[in-house]
Amino acid sequence: MPERLVVIGGDAAGMSAASQARRRRNRRDLEIVAFERGRHVSYSACGIPYWIGGEVARERDLIARDVATFADEYGIDVKTNHEVVGLDLSTRTVSVRQVDIGVIEPVAFDQVVMATGAVPVRPDLPGLDAPGVFGVQTLDDGERVRAAVDEGARRAVVVGGGYVGLEMAEAMARRGLEVTLVEAAPEPMSTLDTELGAMVREAMTGMGIAVRTGEKVVGVEVGQDGRAVAVRTADTSYPADLVVLGLGVRPDTALAAAAGLPLGETGGIRVDHRMRVLGEDGVWAAGDCVETRHLVGGHAVHVPLGTHANKQGRVIGINLGGGYATFPGVLGTAVTKVCDLEIGRTGLGEAEARRIGFQSVAATITSTSAAGYLPEPGSVTIKLVAERRTGRLLGGQIVGRGGAAKRVDVLATAITAGMTVEEMISLDLGYAPPFSPLWDPVLVAARKTAEAVESAEYRH
Amino acid sequence: MPERLVVIGGDAAGMSAASQARRRRNRRDLEIVAFERGRHVSYSACGIPYWIGGEVARERDLIARDVATFADEYGIDVKTNHEVVGLDLSTRTVSVRQVDIGVIEPVAFDQVVMATGAVPVRPDLPGLDAPGVFGVQTLDDGERVRAAVDEGARRAVVVGGGYVGLEMAEAMARRGLEVTLVEAAPEPMSTLDTELGAMVREAMTGMGIAVRTGEKVVGVEVGQDGRAVAVRTADTSYPADLVVLGLGVRPDTALAAAAGLPLGETGGIRVDHRMRVLGEDGVWAAGDCVETRHLVGGHAVHVPLGTHANKQGRVIGINLGGGYATFPGVLGTAVTKVCDLEIGRTGLGEAEARRIGFQSVAATITSTSAAGYLPEPGSVTIKLVAERRTGRLLGGQIVGRGGAAKRVDVLATAITAGMTVEEMISLDLGYAPPFSPLWDPVLVAARKTAEAVESAEYRH
Repeated sequence: MPERLVVIGGDAAGMSAASQARRRRNRRDLEIVAFERGRHVSYSACGIPYWIGGEVARERDLIARDVATFADEYGIDVKTNHEVVGLDLSTRTVSVRQVDIGVIEPVAFDQVVMATGAVPVRPDLPGLDAPGVFGVQTLDDGERVRAAVDEGARRAVVVGGGYVGLEMAEAMARRGLEVTLVEAAPEPMSTLDTELGAMVREAMTGMGIAVRTGEKVVGVEVGQDGRAVAVRTADTSYPADLVVLGLGVRPDTALAAAAGLPLGETGGIRVDHRMRVLGEDGVWAAGDCVETRHLVGGHAVHVPLGTHANKQGRVIGINLGGGYATFPGVLGTAVTKVCDLEIGRTGLGEAEARRIGFQSVAATITSTSAAGYLPEPGSVTIKLVAERRTGRLLGGQIVGRGGAAKRVDVLATAITAGMTVEEMISLDLGYAPPFSPLWDPVLVAARKTAEAVESAEYRH
Repeated sequence: MPERLVVIGGDAAGMSAASQARRRRNRRDLEIVAFERGRHVSYSACGIPYWIGGEVARERDLIARDVATFADEYGIDVKTNHEVVGLDLSTRTVSVRQVDIGVIEPVAFDQVVMATGAVPVRPDLPGLDAPGVFGVQTLDDGERVRAAVDEGARRAVVVGGGYVGLEMAEAMARRGLEVTLVEAAPEPMSTLDTELGAMVREAMTGMGIAVRTGEKVVGVEVGQDGRAVAVRTADTSYPADLVVLGLGVRPDTALAAAAGLPLGETGGIRVDHRMRVLGEDGVWAAGDCVETRHLVGGHAVHVPLGTHANKQGRVIGINLGGGYATFPGVLGTAVTKVCDLEIGRTGLGEAEARRIGFQSVAATITSTSAAGYLPEPGSVTIKLVAERRTGRLLGGQIVGRGGAAKRVDVLATAITAGMTVEEMISLDLGYAPPFSPLWDPVLVAARKTAEAVESAEYRH
């Protein structure tokens, strides 16, 4: 009898774990069953805004692999429309409900992977559940928003100015809607320090999106037919044919909590460096439902992102397959784009560093992403945060054009390596006129920050 | 009486040294005189192909700062058309010839910076000095090539398929010339391993450039008027109205050698980590005339590139100004572009690693520089070379489109930090559909190379 692995959740984390485990253990040794409550497995939720905006033509383009592929090529039995509603660790059984017909049946397992993902944050406000109010977490959500746009919605209000909010606002503006973005923080993209967030606001305004910051949403107004007609803030209300919630997500841990699995301060399932659920044997967890460690601050964080889900799933699959792999943690690296403005961030922001007790210095520079004598070199603004005294790079933020955002990868690598800004000055980065000025903006920022570190020392 | 600093050569290295020294020492403390034999200081030689190709409109756009700026803003006395023809370390005097009138006068110094740059490699072949054969090392060279193109040259032959050769071939093809590139190596861009060089050849051929590799130039044929009319190889000859030499450069050390300064195996002046000429007090050297250390192999290398010249000059200026700075060495990082094909490399190639005695494994992957479901995501090929047993990253090469080349900066940072390919797999690099697939190509390459490292171990 082969061992049986049950995977709960058929997206990035779960299917990566399943695929990697299969690479190392064959069917006679390990049976793999994955349960997914939705219609699809292994799709790109991050691609939804591009589908709604029209850059991606078809929903199925967002689906990396389908059920048949998993069955035929990997020998993984994927059951969509199957929701795991119970997890019993003493009997090592899950209870699985067939969504369409409602029948619940027990399935025994030897090993289990929790990959239940996240659920959108929906504050308890009047009208938020009304028709016309959409999340953008699943392909099904995306389909509903796209349908509403196709059916002629003219005015959209996006609540929340994080990545998803920004991308959705742009997507709908591309489709010709009149878009308002409402955000409680002083600037959109609150994972940036405010002076860089202001540059994002400007780009959005430039493409005709009305950006209302410092405004807290207090509810959604509904019409006589019960549909959403406006988003109400403390001061005013914004008419809407369509409301998109971009307030972020929280770990979906209903099943884990009921089974007594340990949850951390961020609400995510607690795992060790090999993605084993703490204190449980043969129970693994990965993706948007777990909390992980910040590589700079060491604190627990919840960073729901497909790239971590995928890496963590891979780590589980390797370990489960008898190999050895670890997931050390994250830097909170993120990149996105609003119109042609690129945004990147990694590590700690200045405010964030202060909040968790780092003494830091910061410097901001503006340069270009190509030689200044070429036509229209994109402007690039970089802010670096370094630890006082040591000069160790703690974080960086980039806003700019023409190849600005992915420069954040150099910062992420330098942070991971524990480099100081002084050391970074000597980095042998690529130079050619179409790609960089003689001093790459990253190096200019490192120089300025190293000078700030030096003068902070003189002052003490 | 202030100390006097004489800078020999007014381009990137020399003027960076001068400017940095000035930031730390005022005019009453340090007098700075820079001698430049050409007409211009502080210009971008790397920009010449873009000027010839028409992307840069005016020659003066390539000049970062002029003589008046240095005088007025920095208090640096720059003398163009002044060639230093002698250096006497016992009397601490340079002999300076005014190029226009031929008069030679002695100038005393306390400190001297050798920033004499490089001279084009010109093999001793018949016809190579004929009119119609051009280098592209200085703005004056560039002006001559541009004039020849403007005057109606129709056929150009570029000798040498390195960066400059490639960029010049493309520039002239843009201007409508019929261009042939002749290269002795099996593929253009011999700093890439051959399988990646083949991709470069394909891109060049695709834009109508005739690429003739494996052909050694034996001379230039001249017409009755003494002008170049064709480039002759062992087998055939290629008609040319215009011949551009892109055979690289060698350190210009005539002055240094005559003064008895130590030269290394690469022909460059030998300096220590603070850019002091070995064994000499108050004598500094930087830029294309020095040799430096390869950060991976530890061997001496000569890498003539403005970015190193600038950094090294800055190090001199800081040290000369009483501060402390070092230049650790280089990775040979380089990026360029042929049409829309981006090319990047850093560290050791596979053949190079073997040549200097590393045992290594390599892996090559092809991925995309954006999510696969977006329209036309650029293809990216990455080859990584890692040390056997340790898995330490030794080098990487990238050929691709849509943001491929500057990914080499992540590799350069990882190499500098001594990271292994296994460690790189966990790097928190930025992900969003317009910028990367869920697994950035760099991470895919790291995974594949880590697997190669692992299986190389099993085989032994």
